[in-house]
This record gives sequence, C-alpha cells and structure tokens, in this order.
Amino acid sequence: MERKTIKDILADYKKILHHDITVQGWVRAFRSNRFIALNDGSTINNLQVVVDFENFNEEVIKSITTASSLKIVGEVVESQGAGQTVEILAKKIVILGDNFSDDLQKTILQPKKHSLEKLREEAHLRFRTNLFGAVFRVRSAVSFAIHQFFNQNQFFYINTPIITGADAEGAGEMFGVTAFDLNQVPKTEDGEVNFEEDFFGRKTSLTVSGQLEAETAAMGLGRVYTFGPTFRAENSNTTRHLAEFWMVEPEVAFNNLEDNIDLAENFLKYVIGYVLDNCKDDLAFLDKRFAEEQKQKPEKDRAKEGLIEKLENVIKKRFKRVSYTEAIDILMNSKENKKGKFQFPIEAWGADLQSEHERFLVEKHFECPVVPLDYPKDIKAFYMRLNEDGKTVAAMDVLFPGIGEIIGGSQREERLEVLKSKMQEMNVDEHELWWYLDTRKFGSVPHAGFGLGLERLVLFVTGWTNIRDVIPFPRTPKSAEF
Amino acid sequence: MERKTIKDILADYKKILHHDITVQGWVRAFRSNRFIALNDGSTINNLQVVVDFENFNEEVIKSITTASSLKIVGEVVESQGAGQTVEILAKKIVILGDNFSDDLQKTILQPKKHSLEKLREEAHLRFRTNLFGAVFRVRSAVSFAIHQFFNQNQFFYINTPIITGADAEGAGEMFGVTAFDLNQVPKTEDGEVNFEEDFFGRKTSLTVSGQLEAETAAMGLGRVYTFGPTFRAENSNTTRHLAEFWMVEPEVAFNNLEDNIDLAENFLKYVIGYVLDNCKDDLAFLDKRFAEEQKQKPEKDRAKEGLIEKLENVIKKRFKRVSYTEAIDILMNSKENKKGKFQFPIEAWGADLQSEHERFLVEKHFECPVVPLDYPKDIKAFYMRLNEDGKTVAAMDVLFPGIGEIIGGSQREERLEVLKSKMQEMNVDEHELWWYLDTRKFGSVPHAGFGLGLERLVLFVTGWTNIRDVIPFPRTPKSAEF
Repeated sequence: MERKTIKDILADYKKILHHDITVQGWVRAFRSNRFIALNDGSTINNLQVVVDFENFNEEVIKSITTASSLKIVGEVVESQGAGQTVEILAKKIVILGDNFSDDLQKTILQPKKHSLEKLREEAHLRFRTNLFGAVFRVRSAVSFAIHQFFNQNQFFYINTPIITGADAEGAGEMFGVTAFDLNQVPKTEDGEVNFEEDFFGRKTSLTVSGQLEAETAAMGLGRVYTFGPTFRAENSNTTRHLAEFWMVEPEVAFNNLEDNIDLAENFLKYVIGYVLDNCKDDLAFLDKRFAEEQKQKPEKDRAKEGLIEKLENVIKKRFKRVSYTEAIDILMNSKENKKGKFQFPIEAWGADLQSEHERFLVEKHFECPVVPLDYPKDIKAFYMRLNEDGKTVAAMDVLFPGIGEIIGGSQREERLEVLKSKMQEMNVDEHELWWYLDTRKFGSVPHAGFGLGLERLVLFVTGWTNIRDVIPFPRTPKSAEF
Repeated sequence: MERKTIKDILADYKKILHHDITVQGWVRAFRSNRFIALNDGSTINNLQVVVDFENFNEEVIKSITTASSLKIVGEVVESQGAGQTVEILAKKIVILGDNFSDDLQKTILQPKKHSLEKLREEAHLRFRTNLFGAVFRVRSAVSFAIHQFFNQNQFFYINTPIITGADAEGAGEMFGVTAFDLNQVPKTEDGEVNFEEDFFGRKTSLTVSGQLEAETAAMGLGRVYTFGPTFRAENSNTTRHLAEFWMVEPEVAFNNLEDNIDLAENFLKYVIGYVLDNCKDDLAFLDKRFAEEQKQKPEKDRAKEGLIEKLENVIKKRFKRVSYTEAIDILMNSKENKKGKFQFPIEAWGADLQSEHERFLVEKHFECPVVPLDYPKDIKAFYMRLNEDGKTVAAMDVLFPGIGEIIGGSQREERLEVLKSKMQEMNVDEHELWWYLDTRKFGSVPHAGFGLGLERLVLFVTGWTNIRDVIPFPRTPKSAEF
C-alpha cells in the first residue's frame, strides 16, 4: 500500500525531509497544546506532530485529546527537541471520527495505571496500549517466523480438523460441538442422546491435537506441520492455562528421535532469532518493563538475565540433551531434594517431572535449555515409540528457563504390532482409530514430531507471566466475552 | 535438515553425480523387477531407482511392491532412459516397515482409478496420490503466500476467538459449544437451559467470522489480518459448502472502499503469482488433468482457457470495477435475461446477484475478474458504510471466472449514530455488541476489510470443482470421520 505508516516515516525520514506528507493515527498524548504524540499501530514509537495553535481554529485544538483520531498533512523536519529525530509541522488537521472523552475516562484508554484484570475485561481496547501493542506485534512476528521456518525447510502446512469425531489422544476434557437445541436433545428409545440426529450424525468435539491426522499427512507429503487452535475443557484457573490456544505440530517422515530434537532446537532458535532481528523496538520496550518488574521482586526471585539477554543466550547455547534416567539421578541426588525443598520429592525412577524439577534442571543445574529424553513408557502417550529396553519410549521435551516445558514430542511407534499392544494396554480404542492404524499397514516408516504451544513461546519471548495477556481474546472458565 | 529430499536431488543432481546418496520414500511403481519409481512427498516427481536383482536377495525384491517404504543407498547417475534425467543405481535397500499387500488392494492405494467418493472416505490415504499430493502442496503454498503478502505489507496476524459468546453477524446457523453432558443438561427453575452452569457461564458457539474482533484490533494496530477456521451449521450438501473452512480477513484502519479494492486485487495477484512461481510441477500436473476433464465435457461447457493460462490472465488484467447499479443494468438488458435464460431473472434494481449472474458478468460480459461495488443496503450486513445516496452501502465483491464470488468486503460504518440506527433497523443487539460500538466511540476512524474463503481460492488455483477435495478432512452434514 502506498500510504506511509509511522514506521515507514521514522525509518526513511531522510528521504522525505522538507516534503509535505499525510499521516493518520490516534493521539497518545497532547502536551502544552502544541506537541501531539501520534501512533498508528505500525510501531511502538510515536510520531511527534507540532501544532502551532494560531494556525488552527479553537474547535480543532479542543478536539485533540487522548485517543482522538487525526489525519494530518504537514512538513517533515528534523526535530529540535530531545527524544525524537524527526517531527511533522502540521499544516492541516482533520478529526476523523468521534471521541467521547467523558466515556473514555471510564475505560483503560484513560492514561493512568490500570490493573491487568481491567485490561483483560476491555480486551477490545488493549491493542491501543504500548504494552499490548508490543505483545501482539511480537506474537505476529513469532507466527510468521514459524511459517517461514517450515516453508524454508520444505514442510507443507496442513489444516487438520477442528471439529473431530475422534477422542483418541484423551488429552484432558473435550468440548462438545452440537447443532442440537439443548432444550430438546433427541433421545433414543433407551433414553440415550441420539447423536445420529445431530449435524454430523455422531458425537463430535473440539480437537485437542492435530497430531494423529498430521501423521497420516506426513505419510504422503513427507514433512508437514499444523498451526491452528486446540481446546481443553479443563477447569484450570491458572496463569498457564487457556481453554482455547494455538498449537504448532510438525510431523516428519523418516525422522528419528535425534532428528526430532535437532528440528526442535533449530526451530526455536530460528523463531527467537527472527524476533530479535525484526522486533527490536518492541523488545526494547518489553526488556525495560521486564527489568522494572524484576526490581519489584525480592532479590532471590529475580531473573538472572534481562529479557533480550535471555533470548540471545538461548540462541547461542547448544541445548543440553540428557536421558530421563540421568535427569532423575541428578534430581534425586540434588541438595534441594535431600533437604526436602521440592514440593514433590523425587523418590524413584518412574516419577513424572514437575515444573519445579524442570526449572531446577534448566535454571540451576545446566543453566541452559535442557532436553530430557527416553521417558518411562507409563507416563507417556500410547503412540510413542518403545525403546529396546522395553521400559522407556523415544520421547523428548524441551525445557526453557522460566517456563519449563515448551515443546513435547517423540518418535512415533511405527511397528503395527507393538502399537496395537500398546493401545490395548492403555485402553485406546482400535476401531475408532482404524485410519491411524492404516498408516502402519501400508508402507509404515519411522517418523517423529512434536507440539509447541504458541502462547507459551510468546510468554517466553515477551517476558510476560500470564498467558491471558498474550492471546487477544482469552477463553477461560466463566469467560468468553467478545 | 540435512537429509536430501527427492526434490533436492532432482534439482541439484549435477552437484552429486557419481556420489553415493541415501534416499527414503514410498514405491509408486516397480516395473520389470528393475525400475522403482520412488516418491517422498517433497515433489510430484518420482525418483527412478534402478535395481540389479542379482545384487539383492529375493526376499527384498519381493517386498518391493506398491506403497512399500524403502531406504536406498546408491550412486547418482545420468539416466539412459526417457522420462528422467537422473537415476539412482541401488547398492543397498532397506525395507522400512510393514506393507500388507492384501489389505492394500482394498484401499485407494491400489493403483487403479478410484471414485472421488472413495478417495474422500479414505482421506487419510489420499495424501499419497499424485492428485491430492499436488492439491495439498498448492494449498500450503497459497497459505504461505497469504502470510508473506501481509507480512511484507506491515500487517499483523491476529487470532480472533474460535469459541465465541457473540452471535451478532448472524451469518447462518452456528454450532453450539458446551461442556455439558447432553444426557443431563442443567435447567433453570423456568425449565430453560441453565447456561450459567456451563464451562463459560454463558451460551457459546463456534465463530462464523473474526471480522468484528479484527476491527477492534485494527483500531490499535492499524493493519491486521486473521487466518483461521470458521464454521457454518448449514445443512448444505453441495460442492461449494463446508461446515468447517478457513477464512482470511484483513482489516485496515484509514482505508476506504477504493483502498480496500486495491488491497484485494494486489493480494489475489500476489498469491496467484506466488503459486505460479513456486508450484510449477504441481500446476503442470493439474493443468494437464484440467485439460483432460474439459475434453470429457460437451463443447459448450468447456473452459475457454487452460488452468495455467487462466491464472496468468488473472494476474495480467486489471480487475473491472463496476457499480452494482451498472451491473444490474447490464444484466437486465442482456440477451440472456430477455430470453429467460437465467434461472433467477433480473427484474429490478435491488435484486441480489446469483452465481449465474456473477459468472455472466465475469465470463461473458467483461471477460476478466469483476468488482461490483456500492450494493443496495438491504441485501448487505449492518456494519457496511452507508453511502451518501442513503440507499447503497460501500460494499464490494470480487468475482472470479468459474467460481463467482471469491472475496466479499466493505468499508465499515465508522459513524456511531449511523451504525446504531442501522443495528436497530436490522435487529442487531446493541448490548451484546457493546465492545464493537466502543470502537466507534473512542477515536473512530474510516476503515475497511474483506473476507476470503481459503478453499474457494484453492479451488480456483487448482482448477478443481468439489470443495471437499481441497481441505484435508472435510466436515459436511453427516460426516466427521477422522
């Protein structure tokens, strides 16, 4: 588009010095009836517009208040003041639309400190704050980097179904999807819900993962990934859970566990590197905010690294790969464990790793991202490949500082008989998954993949703490406004 | 990833001539016990592997059948035969997994002609056919091009909610989302469903559009787009309808109708150009198939252009912009209308354009993509901007040959009072949309956007006819397998 954004103007101002330009945006502040800080969302930086009030009628000047929308024609000049290199000398000002100052004072657009809870209640307005502008621009960059990484590596993007008739992975509670009028749910003669009369002629739910369908695609297209919404009807009111969140799931034919870890490491480093390169201004803002937040904490709880420093370090260091067995040894023999400092003490091989253990390994022991692998089969899903020892599976997690698990994946069980007996053991219905088993019947191949929760990664990259603040319209128990 | 795909090998074979390489894939054909056509999904092209059966034991040779999975080490040589420039002389062959030939004969993997209906029933296997491999690689390229176009033009990707408490746009029937056990739906004292007890504490549905939420984001971030699944619980069993489909919705602050049309035209041309540049082999295959399909039709129904020719022409020509009023005149005065050849004759200004009218304008009258604009307000949605004439709104559609409407959009009504009276007129609940009205209260600005159904565009680009064949796992009435 030909219209210049404020980002363009700030970047290229030397080319347009002393030219008249048109710029549109919202007023972030109006100082001394003279200096407008104008923002159009393209960047966190405002453009300074200088208004000589003698040149404009009083009505116009009065209308310039917080959040009002302006179209300005003016000359680009180098700024005399501190804080900006360029400014616009306004020659023409048009008020673009309504701005009701009285009502505005009740909203989060009123320039003062608002609680995050209030910001969430007005999620439709929070895009207009510095903080959320930065967060959502970074989220967008993360998403684009994900697509670009996979595209450059010959992956095909596939859309697995959102409404699904399969309930196989059993990863927590699922939401039902129905076209029934809930006042009059049709029943069979036995008094059961008659799903045959529903839209799809069967019981359907919202997907919890596209992995199984993605595996079928990988068996034809080789390298695929999904990137779409997934759902959990879990009644968890925490800073880490959403009922609706976005997940990325690559699946690669011919990959083994080691390939899978390489892919995960390269992928994360690419995406974080992309954000470091492309979101400098937003990251600088978030970095400063992160530092301020840390200062408010007791010294022992403060992060060792600044936000940008943390991101740069993740890219530099090779992720530490360690067997589950070794990780359990480290945890079991740690001072923390012996002194009873873990909420869940590690007593024996076979224990599941809790968040506190993950963070101990990453933040205290190895001081870098850690990839535990070859987990006990009993604590992992049915589709993970059984190792030769008969008691572990070819699973891997990527653990990040401050976050814990950011990726979970595995080599998949490609041997039909082993898979079937695993399903029997774990009570997974073979008949429902007839199509999944087919992939092991017709030219089965070793393959592997993983899942990444987008919001977890955005939390990490923005240094933010509550997952409800990194998705535009969070869905949580008792909350589905907008 | 370091492992070379067949696409890499075919593209760079000169660099690896007479080297030994490793390649993995599935057998598409095995001719004369000597020539394997190997495919790994990276490209529609197979790699020829030459097997000297004297060098391998009989068991291995026997296992090489349709769909079996192989790892081959061999030397890259220039091919003596016709049909390929390069081939691999096999030195080592490993069978990677099970392949049950007897069962395979009952599936679509059996090399013979299968009905599209059977292909749909085995959607999990159709990725392994030439046709669907090509279609889904092209779909992936289309998706990537969409992200790249918007990224290059400073748009931010935002995720609007899938589960929504709003039912405002009223675009057809919505699916309900619930965590209730449908056998025991909680009721209030009045005998109504007690949605307060449901997961979200209210009635929730699957989104039909992210537009209204995207508008709130555009009011902060300037240029945004959504790209996600949307849903319709319409009982339409046609070749053009899906209950679950993917939609792209850009929304741009400060854009008027003309900007919006420019954006739509540039966008479509970019995406189609990207596919022409990046999917040459798949398009060549689809082009040939398209030509064969046309031959089977009576001459009068045949497409005038080949598939690739059609795509190239869409890029070359400027889209024809024409007012709705002018379009209606053209239709009303057409021979077709006068001779009663339209199923829905055009009798007066105010009539909605049906598919037959759209195609007449595009294919017969203008012979290029057409953009009718300024539609009667009564046949369009409440949020479209009322024109000065008081009877039309600033709406636009993009009509494509063979497809009809591929994009629908408008400048949005940014004037609070006009919007409110429009909502009243059309029975849209103001209270439910309090947040939408807020965007018109606090620095309202002119803005515009449109919606594109991804599958429609993929149909156009692949020359395909049934929408169920361009999404991996179609969701339609009575069908939600997988």
